[in-house]
Amino acid sequence: MREETKEPQVGITTKKSENFSEWYTEVVLKSELADYSPASGFMVFRPRAYAIWEKIQAFFDREIKKRGIQNAYFPLVIPESLLRKEMEHFEGFVPEVAWVTMTGDRELGERLAIRPTSETIMYHSYAKWISSYKDLPLRLNLWNSVVRMEFGDPKLFLRTREFLWQEGHSCFATKGEAEEEVTDILNLYAKVVQDLLAIPVLTGRKSRLEKFAGAEYTMTLESIMTDLRVLQMGTSHHLGRNFAKVFDITFSDKDGERRYVYQNSWGISTRLLGAMVMVHGDDRGLVVPPKVADPKVVIIPIFYSEEEKTLVHRECRAILDELEGHGIATIYDDREDRTPGWKFNEWELKGVPVRLEVGPRDIAKGETVLVRRDTYEKSAVSRDDLAASVEETLDAIQAYLFGRAKAFQQDHTTQVVDFEEFRKALQNTGGFVKACWCGRDECERSVKEETGATSRLISTEKEVFSPCVYCGDTANHIVYFAKAY
Amino acid sequence: MREETKEPQVGITTKKSENFSEWYTEVVLKSELADYSPASGFMVFRPRAYAIWEKIQAFFDREIKKRGIQNAYFPLVIPESLLRKEMEHFEGFVPEVAWVTMTGDRELGERLAIRPTSETIMYHSYAKWISSYKDLPLRLNLWNSVVRMEFGDPKLFLRTREFLWQEGHSCFATKGEAEEEVTDILNLYAKVVQDLLAIPVLTGRKSRLEKFAGAEYTMTLESIMTDLRVLQMGTSHHLGRNFAKVFDITFSDKDGERRYVYQNSWGISTRLLGAMVMVHGDDRGLVVPPKVADPKVVIIPIFYSEEEKTLVHRECRAILDELEGHGIATIYDDREDRTPGWKFNEWELKGVPVRLEVGPRDIAKGETVLVRRDTYEKSAVSRDDLAASVEETLDAIQAYLFGRAKAFQQDHTTQVVDFEEFRKALQNTGGFVKACWCGRDECERSVKEETGATSRLISTEKEVFSPCVYCGDTANHIVYFAKAY
Repeated sequence: MREETKEPQVGITTKKSENFSEWYTEVVLKSELADYSPASGFMVFRPRAYAIWEKIQAFFDREIKKRGIQNAYFPLVIPESLLRKEMEHFEGFVPEVAWVTMTGDRELGERLAIRPTSETIMYHSYAKWISSYKDLPLRLNLWNSVVRMEFGDPKLFLRTREFLWQEGHSCFATKGEAEEEVTDILNLYAKVVQDLLAIPVLTGRKSRLEKFAGAEYTMTLESIMTDLRVLQMGTSHHLGRNFAKVFDITFSDKDGERRYVYQNSWGISTRLLGAMVMVHGDDRGLVVPPKVADPKVVIIPIFYSEEEKTLVHRECRAILDELEGHGIATIYDDREDRTPGWKFNEWELKGVPVRLEVGPRDIAKGETVLVRRDTYEKSAVSRDDLAASVEETLDAIQAYLFGRAKAFQQDHTTQVVDFEEFRKALQNTGGFVKACWCGRDECERSVKEETGATSRLISTEKEVFSPCVYCGDTANHIVYFAKAY
Repeated sequence: MREETKEPQVGITTKKSENFSEWYTEVVLKSELADYSPASGFMVFRPRAYAIWEKIQAFFDREIKKRGIQNAYFPLVIPESLLRKEMEHFEGFVPEVAWVTMTGDRELGERLAIRPTSETIMYHSYAKWISSYKDLPLRLNLWNSVVRMEFGDPKLFLRTREFLWQEGHSCFATKGEAEEEVTDILNLYAKVVQDLLAIPVLTGRKSRLEKFAGAEYTMTLESIMTDLRVLQMGTSHHLGRNFAKVFDITFSDKDGERRYVYQNSWGISTRLLGAMVMVHGDDRGLVVPPKVADPKVVIIPIFYSEEEKTLVHRECRAILDELEGHGIATIYDDREDRTPGWKFNEWELKGVPVRLEVGPRDIAKGETVLVRRDTYEKSAVSRDDLAASVEETLDAIQAYLFGRAKAFQQDHTTQVVDFEEFRKALQNTGGFVKACWCGRDECERSVKEETGATSRLISTEKEVFSPCVYCGDTANHIVYFAKAY
């Protein structure tokens, strides 16, 4: 129908199926989600990425506020002595801590850690603020960034020395209330990942070896990426009274007894954006799920004469107003120094879910050409029902992306009964390998050493279907193993 | 009418008029806006303060997005060599820079500065991203925190080693467009401060000595505090092509010529919360202007018997629903272990604009007792028009606070024609001293050395009314001087 542009293309040159890792970096950079920075290992979140993060923030923030959780801000730095107070926690972070040792040209008396996470600096305040059961529950959330100086190759969104996240930190009078929150937040995270980002998750408990240092237990969300490696999408920790004892966070209970609080902490980060790129992107670039896309629609005018131009411009503006009137974030790309073909490529690269093409013939027929970013399906929709058609299409894209990812996850989850099958499944199918486990650290460690796969989560499913996949002893857990990011 | 409570009071013990500085700290701490932290000089933003900051963010964010300005995030750290690229800028910050020199137990090859501001790290990226006039304007905003390791006594919100702010950084093809933005943002800041925080401002240009190092000129907003010292409330800088030349930010213009961009940067910070406390607070604590208050209304039940309790509870809940239905953030304080008097004190301390007292006699009369936080004025309002009365009262409080502060500012602004008058005005009246100036650095410096007052801004008023207040030569500027924070 239309000629392809002859301009030099700025599109993706690596195929997703051929070199996943290069493809990923190319998409992130060329779609202008993010960039490297002159500070080695640190990244720049460009507006397109930040806007998606803001969508996640808006949803999550509204939800936690409904629950009475409040936002606050705690210092960026933590004195070394404070960070050292909980040793298991400290040792988990110390190799990656960035230390401030000087200001101007003076040496500091005590080194300051840039927060790798805020437990210690917050709990010092919690101990001051909490004295009675009337002060409980105390549930605060921070939107901030944390620094962990990894030395491996940086990977945008997934492995950088600084990332954006939220960290929630709660204190309760009873273990029961605390545990209820752990589950509630886990479910809320699942909503963020599944409903907004259209990425299916498996949820469960981390093994002792994989849990957060200092937590009594860690609940996790795990998703499979297109390269068959698995990414931890978020965690919700029950800290028990571990930190409370170290930081002396106590309250006088209704019966007058002094008791330690029960605590949780929980977080999701901008690594979710990396997952979104990996799971939904294709050889033409980014595919942004409609619920977090902004814009959701791009309108592209097509004309060959001045007369047509006037007509088409008028129609495009009317469509823009109509869609904006329906609350659908839309842009009208009326740049005159770009061809339609160039624009198609650019907006596909940037992942805008719906493209509308408006030409004189379409106008004459009372139609608009609608193109889906996910399937490239092209249809002529009636101008009269345009807003409704666009809304339906956006819903359909959201559902399609989730469905496709869900099928991929199911196709790459293999249930095995012995170690021979385990190896084969990991090698032939990849993704999750579902197996039974006796619960011993040694077996988990051996699986990891011999296959590279780690225990991603202990399922809530209770009915074991075989002996321990490694030692053959009686099993009491169902575990999903995978090679992980 | 009601007995005062006999419980120990947790209220403010210092009078604002007697020891302003102690009063300030007491209000900030006891109203639970903020707290000190174990990291010396760093502060904790508690939920009550953060919620007010979120109101400012919501307003400002909506306004800048309307203007096409986008949010982004840039790294927390800046390599020393990059920070050093613009020397005037660097020297302005270097004594206060926090340096990261180690990670884990390794020394870093190059020190990393924690950002004192983001010009250098951003403009490095800008140079990469901008190549054509088509890439302009580029207008990004960051919501983040910055670190400046001041060694004076910390003062919550006003002088801490870390504060929250937004920093906007724009590039334009022409100086004209850039300068338009400088003014537009200055006006927007004036709206934030005057319309939301109910604090009047004076605006104008900074002198050469007082401008931001590296800026061509700085526009500022200045407000008078109740202790008669003046606080800089925000700044909007035109950077000219100063940074563009250092960072090589160029674009090929429509005529094919390669040109440097014109740049601005602008920011407001959480020091605004300190100003709010100082300007509006009183001997009972915080007074939060209704537009940034959350909650705006507190409902307090008063009853003496179980029968009354049922009746009063029902009424309070109905009022709560009604006000919430009108979008008025309200809390119902139904705690049973506190007396009404205790609650009155607590919510006054925390600055909630309107208190509703609901007792059986009020219910019988079809009325509710409404108490204003600003004037303590008490009135019985008809239950039927309650939501409307509350809304009117909130508007009235907002207007009253602004009006009172405006009158205070006018009462403490003295126009003088010579240095003798200048000294007297500063000593007797305090606040702003309005005087004419020849424009020479030496005169400005001498005024500062001899009186402690600095030039706060050069007014846009053009008609000089006397010779230079210091040297007696011909003046060409009207300047507002003051002792500043």
